[in-house]
Amino acid sequence: MIDFRPISLILGILLTTLAVVMAVPAAVDAATGNPDWQVFAVSAGVTLFIGVSLIITSRAGGVSLSARQAFILTTLSWIVLTLFAALPFAFSGLQMSFSDAYFEAMSGITTTGATVIVNLENVPPGLLLWRALLQWLGGIGIIVMALAVMPMLRVGGMQLFRMESSDQSEKAMPRAAQVASTIGVIYLGLTAIWAAAMWFAGMSGFDAIAHAMTTIATGGFSTHTASIGYYNSTLIDAIITLGMIVGSLPFLLYLFALQGKPGALFRDTQVQWFLTTLFVLVTVVAGWLWLGRGIEPLQALRFSSFNVVSIMTGTGYATDGFDRWGPFVVPLFFFIMFVGGCAGSTTCGIKIFRFQILYAAARTQFQHLAQPHGVFIPYYNRNPISDEVIQSVMSFFFVFLATFALLAILLAMLGLDFLTSVSAAASAIANVGPGLGHVIGPEGTYASLPVAAKWLLSIGMLLGRLELFTVMVLFTRAFWRA
Amino acid sequence: MIDFRPISLILGILLTTLAVVMAVPAAVDAATGNPDWQVFAVSAGVTLFIGVSLIITSRAGGVSLSARQAFILTTLSWIVLTLFAALPFAFSGLQMSFSDAYFEAMSGITTTGATVIVNLENVPPGLLLWRALLQWLGGIGIIVMALAVMPMLRVGGMQLFRMESSDQSEKAMPRAAQVASTIGVIYLGLTAIWAAAMWFAGMSGFDAIAHAMTTIATGGFSTHTASIGYYNSTLIDAIITLGMIVGSLPFLLYLFALQGKPGALFRDTQVQWFLTTLFVLVTVVAGWLWLGRGIEPLQALRFSSFNVVSIMTGTGYATDGFDRWGPFVVPLFFFIMFVGGCAGSTTCGIKIFRFQILYAAARTQFQHLAQPHGVFIPYYNRNPISDEVIQSVMSFFFVFLATFALLAILLAMLGLDFLTSVSAAASAIANVGPGLGHVIGPEGTYASLPVAAKWLLSIGMLLGRLELFTVMVLFTRAFWRA
Repeated sequence: MIDFRPISLILGILLTTLAVVMAVPAAVDAATGNPDWQVFAVSAGVTLFIGVSLIITSRAGGVSLSARQAFILTTLSWIVLTLFAALPFAFSGLQMSFSDAYFEAMSGITTTGATVIVNLENVPPGLLLWRALLQWLGGIGIIVMALAVMPMLRVGGMQLFRMESSDQSEKAMPRAAQVASTIGVIYLGLTAIWAAAMWFAGMSGFDAIAHAMTTIATGGFSTHTASIGYYNSTLIDAIITLGMIVGSLPFLLYLFALQGKPGALFRDTQVQWFLTTLFVLVTVVAGWLWLGRGIEPLQALRFSSFNVVSIMTGTGYATDGFDRWGPFVVPLFFFIMFVGGCAGSTTCGIKIFRFQILYAAARTQFQHLAQPHGVFIPYYNRNPISDEVIQSVMSFFFVFLATFALLAILLAMLGLDFLTSVSAAASAIANVGPGLGHVIGPEGTYASLPVAAKWLLSIGMLLGRLELFTVMVLFTRAFWRA
Repeated sequence: MIDFRPISLILGILLTTLAVVMAVPAAVDAATGNPDWQVFAVSAGVTLFIGVSLIITSRAGGVSLSARQAFILTTLSWIVLTLFAALPFAFSGLQMSFSDAYFEAMSGITTTGATVIVNLENVPPGLLLWRALLQWLGGIGIIVMALAVMPMLRVGGMQLFRMESSDQSEKAMPRAAQVASTIGVIYLGLTAIWAAAMWFAGMSGFDAIAHAMTTIATGGFSTHTASIGYYNSTLIDAIITLGMIVGSLPFLLYLFALQGKPGALFRDTQVQWFLTTLFVLVTVVAGWLWLGRGIEPLQALRFSSFNVVSIMTGTGYATDGFDRWGPFVVPLFFFIMFVGGCAGSTTCGIKIFRFQILYAAARTQFQHLAQPHGVFIPYYNRNPISDEVIQSVMSFFFVFLATFALLAILLAMLGLDFLTSVSAAASAIANVGPGLGHVIGPEGTYASLPVAAKWLLSIGMLLGRLELFTVMVLFTRAFWRA
């Protein structure tokens, strides 16, 4: 039997925190004289009540969790938090259905950035801030999970990133909590720096803070319908491009850098691969825009870098309808949706380290074919990769693509066209945000999709964000029989 | 140093055989009074000359091959045979460019079935027969390779299908040759049966023979522009559907069946998975056509079974523009292109056994997550799968999809739209034939594609047919340094 008390205790704490955070947009709405503050007050009240009730009734002795409890807690907390995070959308004056509200909240918490709101200029400031806050919290949430929980759960090769101390959950907690809070401070600091930079570059204070939160979280919610294209500023584009890259690197390495080991960041092969991949793609797309479409070189580089970084890191901001850049970029942007950033960052997708491991394993296969009697060992970050990790990563890759295919087929069954189905499925599972094509492309929204599609995509975002296995294992017989 | 003499000896034998086979369409054209027989006579002369020259100059002692020689021979023979097989197309009155001729020949030999010929009604009978013969030879060629060569080369998990005797190439040859020739007889027998059945069902003798060859080879070249839709006959559809299924099962099991072990065929889990997958997909699509599109149930079942079998097995015949069946079937048909049939059959694609192994490995991952201290072993056909095979299959899966993505992006660079790019790339690598959309869909052809796209797709067909690694290993440094 699984003891649900520590699960409901932590769930209660998380909900209480969420309720407290709701005070921020409430204060903003109240300060600007917007009656929408009541929406947040009611939502916070409901959330607080449930949160505190859970804490009181659970009365757990401690917070040491078994792996199975951690699996249940992880999935349950993202579903339940989204439920309460959806309340302000549902109660607001925007007349959103509960499906729409849940989709928007899930898109926020998973740092996806897909939206059902057609005109952001109509949305009260509190709700705009709430969208940014959700992504910001989701971003730090996933970093902490990647540090403290995923390695213990051994999901999709994440055991590679086990800290020495995270072997045993009981002992790991104090150390992990310490690391997590330091990283939280770094996260806050980076957000503050980017907010200041964007404010300096000409954004309003409100916009600067909101965009700083969704940039560092590689989330992609904007406060304007035209997204970053609204500002039409090279400087803002550059600041955000850099911010999305910063949000895509392993935050643990920032901690090392602060501890006097800045070299760790650039010696990490995951970081090297990530930056090299970006460099190559940005150059190719910029070259295409210049030579193939006649856009002047610097402008081409600006468009290319912003949009390639935005899609590959799964942020999802737009400055231009990149799907109008000719046929070449459509499949390219489709495939780079799957890539993502580094493990231990706010990005989603398959992630760079998994491609490194898949590449290393394939390379070993080739060497073995060429020299059947040779001994070849795949390496990651200068360490040999165990068979366990290889198979873990490869299974992740297979399950990721199988889930993508199934989701795309289900969306098509609901009547979506090919490009919309496959790009929506990829965008949801990889937590990118926009899809491709005129419906859900960088200039569209998910508003017109059927209700069932929105729920399927919400499930896809959750699965992708929690590395699929974390959620899916709950549906196996072995899990409940253990 | 690699000894090229046995390679050139076998290449010479293969070319001489090809020259002899060219006599068949020459005879047909001559018998029907078509001047095109001269095309075949000239092509045969050139091919025979080169073939015999290679045999004479190579003067090899025997035909025992090392793994490295086998790799070189395999790739080289498919490229060179295609070169000579393209001659009749290039010399014919159809005014095909050499690129078109090579594309058509590669599509034939690899049993793909993609065509650049817009109107088959204009093509002389000899050339129609030549297209069918190429697929038929390519089909038996790949079966023999899957039996005798691939397991030795350990490509993409094919070592699973190693016969006891195929460990050492020298000893294996006599036994493999015996098995191969028996399977050749079975292949011929099945072709004869299907030709008779189609003739009985109303096809002309010529059409029956040509379609029997391209059915059992899961090739998909037809003698009519409208493909099998030309006959508009439920009986013919049913016969061909059954034939494509027969061509997709492991031919070694037919040998066992003839040796008095018919149960082996149905106890084989690969066969069970293949038939179950087909059954489910056919039912779902038929249900969709019936309930969603209002087509009467039996007709829906006929359309569904024929087209699902045709695309999944990579045959590529068409009876109807299935991409007009509404949005749902487009992604479905796109994804089932990748599936293919059983190992040791004439089909291409990722193949059922690899999905079984990917599934078994993923399942083991889930069990391990649920019960970290349990011991779980993945099984294939009731035997535990070694780590080597798992990683071999998983690397194949990764390289297959990476190649697909790269090919799709390159095609898009040439100006093809998204659906055409991705479906052409998938269709080439999986040796299906038609793509999706109005250009290269079941009712279109590849004729209008740019020349560079045709060469890229020819490379894709070759890579897919030879299980990628066989070709790619030649481009590694380790291979030539060994």
